Amino acid sequence: MQTYSGMRGQTIYFKNLPKIIASGTVAGPKECAGIAGKYVDRALCDDMFAESTFEKAECKMLYCAIETAISNAGLKKECVDVLLSGDLLNQIISASFAARDIAIPFLGVYSACSTMSESIALGAAMVNAGYIHTAVAATGSHFASAERQYRYPLEQGTTRPPQSQWTVTGAGACVISDAGDGIKIANATIGKVVDYGVTDVNNMGAAMAPACADTIVRHFKDTATVPGDYDLILSGDLGALGGRILKDLCFEKGYDITGNHVDCGEIIYDVKPEEFQGGSGAGCSAVIFNSYILSKLKAKIFKRVLFAATGALLSTVSSGQGESIPCISHAVQLEV
Amino acid sequence: MQTYSGMRGQTIYFKNLPKIIASGTVAGPKECAGIAGKYVDRALCDDMFAESTFEKAECKMLYCAIETAISNAGLKKECVDVLLSGDLLNQIISASFAARDIAIPFLGVYSACSTMSESIALGAAMVNAGYIHTAVAATGSHFASAERQYRYPLEQGTTRPPQSQWTVTGAGACVISDAGDGIKIANATIGKVVDYGVTDVNNMGAAMAPACADTIVRHFKDTATVPGDYDLILSGDLGALGGRILKDLCFEKGYDITGNHVDCGEIIYDVKPEEFQGGSGAGCSAVIFNSYILSKLKAKIFKRVLFAATGALLSTVSSGQGESIPCISHAVQLEV
Repeated sequence: MQTYSGMRGQTIYFKNLPKIIASGTVAGPKECAGIAGKYVDRALCDDMFAESTFEKAECKMLYCAIETAISNAGLKKECVDVLLSGDLLNQIISASFAARDIAIPFLGVYSACSTMSESIALGAAMVNAGYIHTAVAATGSHFASAERQYRYPLEQGTTRPPQSQWTVTGAGACVISDAGDGIKIANATIGKVVDYGVTDVNNMGAAMAPACADTIVRHFKDTATVPGDYDLILSGDLGALGGRILKDLCFEKGYDITGNHVDCGEIIYDVKPEEFQGGSGAGCSAVIFNSYILSKLKAKIFKRVLFAATGALLSTVSSGQGESIPCISHAVQLEV
Repeated sequence: MQTYSGMRGQTIYFKNLPKIIASGTVAGPKECAGIAGKYVDRALCDDMFAESTFEKAECKMLYCAIETAISNAGLKKECVDVLLSGDLLNQIISASFAARDIAIPFLGVYSACSTMSESIALGAAMVNAGYIHTAVAATGSHFASAERQYRYPLEQGTTRPPQSQWTVTGAGACVISDAGDGIKIANATIGKVVDYGVTDVNNMGAAMAPACADTIVRHFKDTATVPGDYDLILSGDLGALGGRILKDLCFEKGYDITGNHVDCGEIIYDVKPEEFQGGSGAGCSAVIFNSYILSKLKAKIFKRVLFAATGALLSTVSSGQGESIPCISHAVQLEV
């Protein structure tokens, strides 16, 4: 039991142990064919979600995940003090429009695919401090909106290179509260931006792995823990290749996480040739964490999990101007 | 003196009164010809800032503002626990790349031109809670990068409509600390997304004014204050037209702010025909607040200021898909 609120190194401790009391998830048909299918609240049979554009479908998924999480917590939206959310679309329009429609005081956050853990960290910080009773943390992504914004129009039929990942169509949200039963948030490690000079925008796993290793190792040092203290170390969306790089980098720094590390991107699909390295996107860790992982925590199959979502902070403009890909990872420690 | 940390309505109170102990500002030549010229730390004679692209110049300004603020506080960057920053470019690349170069643990935030007050609010919340000792809040914008991302390439020479504003080339940062002398941050009001259905992307003032009015009126109600309790009510970048709409909307709701309201966008330029409604952009309130206004607070010419930066949460995609412009405003109350 922790008795301390404050920061050691890059890790903020929450002595009042704010809790995740409920979650809500929505995922597309391709995603629901995989491991998350049994656990998501709403499985879509059509990834347009009855909307006219991919972007509107993405926003609707996010709204639906937030609303479902609040409803699963047995709350009304008027009881939620703050919504923390962001997404991959330019100017985080999915989060902003969802926040408009749900009408909860809104703090926009952005750390690409690390937005799920950043928003949980900030929500937990605000609840633990006693500022608010209830926060919702949420994010999502959509394969088709991400492809046309970051890469090529789908109509072009561009060949995917073998190191590429598949952006997840899905959204996840969780309710963080100072009351009720739930999964305790013990602390959060705020990441630094790490850039190893990777410039291949199709190789996000390799770009993000160093940031994830930096945050995870920092977390071990700050909390004086070792990999064996965790039932699961969950990275965000490094995919198969990035996951291997992460394990190598941690091993080099003296921490062997091979025995208990899993990557959301690696497990979300039954990896087939066309998905190459697995899933990516803010929705990847949002869906896996808020459905599959939280259910295992609730069932006490996992008792202590370190969740380190990972984000690549590039844009098409920065890549076009010859910049490498700066990446970040924020981690939260969860306990039953 | 406040003795309470917590939320009333949408307002979070900071009983430990975290302080702004220093700031740093950079502004372009056009901006420095106006009121901010005498107060900014670094006045640029060339808005390319010796970089090869507008986007790189924007990032360098933001980096420079952050570094100057830390230096003005008499600190080393290693002493700063968290950097909170965001900007208008897609995927907040200016903030992300600045965070990479300055290597401070980084929380990306986004609320368009309301990013300055959102980052101050979150920084103050973390310092007040005792999680951290020192945070830096920062944002910026660049006329040329914003024009080509949101509107038209400059080379096209598109005519500007009379209701348009001029995106400010500049950046501002402030250091929030639990120790030392400075301007106290008493509380922060977290805004809701407000959308009155404005679709004219050249009329940001009209789009944002309702969100600003909503937050300011909410602040008065939450804190049981009236406009006369403030020496200054400072809105972000509504411009001349938006400022008038804000005053009208507040008046309709029973609060007459005409006697002590000023808008950063309205005062940053000596309004000439080509600037139409004045300045806009995240850099607008960042520069005015962190230079001119903080210096007046330090000199005790103002003793109590309500700073409500204002953001339009649109993107070119949302507008292109026929959506109206959702807006937000976060407010922070400052005291000597």
